[in-house]
Amino acid sequence: MPSEFELIARHFTRPVRHTVLGVGDDGAIVRPAAGMDLVVSTDMLVGGTHFLQDTDPEALGWKALAVNLSDLAAMGAQPRWAVVAAALPAPDEAWIAAFARGFFAAADAFDVDVIGGDTTRGPLNLAPTVFGEVPQGQALTRAGARAGDELWVSGAPGRAALGLAHLQGRTRLDLAAQADCSAALLRPQPRVALGLALRGLAGACIDVSDGLLADIGHILERSGLAAEIEFARLPRAALDACADAELARSCLIAGGDDYELAFTAPPAQHEKIEALARKLQLPLTPIGKTLAGAAGQVRLLDAAGQPMPIVHRGYDHFA
Amino acid sequence: MPSEFELIARHFTRPVRHTVLGVGDDGAIVRPAAGMDLVVSTDMLVGGTHFLQDTDPEALGWKALAVNLSDLAAMGAQPRWAVVAAALPAPDEAWIAAFARGFFAAADAFDVDVIGGDTTRGPLNLAPTVFGEVPQGQALTRAGARAGDELWVSGAPGRAALGLAHLQGRTRLDLAAQADCSAALLRPQPRVALGLALRGLAGACIDVSDGLLADIGHILERSGLAAEIEFARLPRAALDACADAELARSCLIAGGDDYELAFTAPPAQHEKIEALARKLQLPLTPIGKTLAGAAGQVRLLDAAGQPMPIVHRGYDHFA
Repeated sequence: MPSEFELIARHFTRPVRHTVLGVGDDGAIVRPAAGMDLVVSTDMLVGGTHFLQDTDPEALGWKALAVNLSDLAAMGAQPRWAVVAAALPAPDEAWIAAFARGFFAAADAFDVDVIGGDTTRGPLNLAPTVFGEVPQGQALTRAGARAGDELWVSGAPGRAALGLAHLQGRTRLDLAAQADCSAALLRPQPRVALGLALRGLAGACIDVSDGLLADIGHILERSGLAAEIEFARLPRAALDACADAELARSCLIAGGDDYELAFTAPPAQHEKIEALARKLQLPLTPIGKTLAGAAGQVRLLDAAGQPMPIVHRGYDHFA
Repeated sequence: MPSEFELIARHFTRPVRHTVLGVGDDGAIVRPAAGMDLVVSTDMLVGGTHFLQDTDPEALGWKALAVNLSDLAAMGAQPRWAVVAAALPAPDEAWIAAFARGFFAAADAFDVDVIGGDTTRGPLNLAPTVFGEVPQGQALTRAGARAGDELWVSGAPGRAALGLAHLQGRTRLDLAAQADCSAALLRPQPRVALGLALRGLAGACIDVSDGLLADIGHILERSGLAAEIEFARLPRAALDACADAELARSCLIAGGDDYELAFTAPPAQHEKIEALARKLQLPLTPIGKTLAGAAGQVRLLDAAGQPMPIVHRGYDHFA
């Protein structure tokens, strides 16, 4: 049976491109460029909580890094480095090799050096930490929204949650919707190019991991604002994919796990953002506006401008 | 029941001292000083693997950060920042509050800003990642040993492993030894001041987490050297603490978990290192020397200079 050290050497040690010292010492050494701030984020993925225990390990490897890079995207940072701590029930080398393939596929896609980590025995748990660079003072935060800003969202949220509902037998999607929603669930695309392009355009930005309304709520809490969102303006893909209208609506407004970006921008930036959508070939949809009001409050309006009931806004691990 | 977000706000959000943006956004923002390399390390602690499930949460909080800072010490880096991802079976607020007290006690002791993290539901798992600064090119690594260097170790390794053996009923220590060994196990002291002082003095350095011979072996593998260690020169505290000579010897040479530093230095530095021991009031003991030979090979010599059998050198999670 290969040792912990052999497994790391065999599957997690690849040439680095912009790193002083990578895997294999007590720590890795990186040299952020002069004039750059370093953005740091960590998201832990737990078997049975964040993914089904039988999830394909290559998809899981992609997703484990992608959801972390999504946080860098939301800050407008250029991803540069990643470490990953992992607990595994047993040293199943085929599983580890597939996980590493997926993890490095995401690393290669976003020019990230994998510089270190830790492997240990325990219930399946993956804890990457990622680092990105942003010119000093230019990071996007949750606190930068102003009253009267437009609220935007990228892509078509809700599809990942629908994909999970299908896998769990809570709904039955047709084949095309299955393919689309399971790709959203298993191979999320962190919106790195969008985050970089939003520097100087967006006021506040967040990645939609907990649920669209919950995450917009986080922007509003930090910015001290309320917001109105028009349900009819939300991207319709999740609604069109699923015959169960109530489930589809819940996935759309509270589903999380798509790793789209939600952001605010002054109305004067509207045309530039539409031009950016065309350039990136990524739908960017204005869905509402921020208002002075109770910090964090989100009103969802129907086509007649009347408030709609919100059963839940998103995911809370301990709620 | 408090939400995930309330728990983070209540227990993991404290003022930062040298950080651009701390807990509460998609990522934290730090600004490494000009001319500095950034050292990054992550060590995961799993309930039942790295600590007994009923370990006092305050001690666990200290240890979770301390063992990570130990890696920075081994690189000669000044600890600066930490994030921590944590999976918890349930939102037991008293447990979380005690864990946070211990974690922040270590952060305060070593001037570390806790800048972010992630909390989620799952089998108990703690995954801090830490960051330190070191002047460019001055980090200590495992690869810097030269043939003929002296091998040194700080403190008195083996006591943490004895403390664990006592808790598990594998031996029975007297009261004084119990107190000493359980302090070594539950409240390890990362040798940060030593690591900083060894810049420019030591060739190679590592923290003793897996076992003294195993970790010295890691230096030797990276440096392409062999070594001889004289058993009679090893710090005797573990041997004196325990009547079971075989267990004590095993804990001393292969016990790990004390987080002492093992390092190499040219004989010409001997006096300076002895002066450093006096200044830091920390025993530093020369225990052997490096040799040209099969990379990674360690010979343990008895008082007559004869090789002693080595049953195992240290811990491997998957061996």
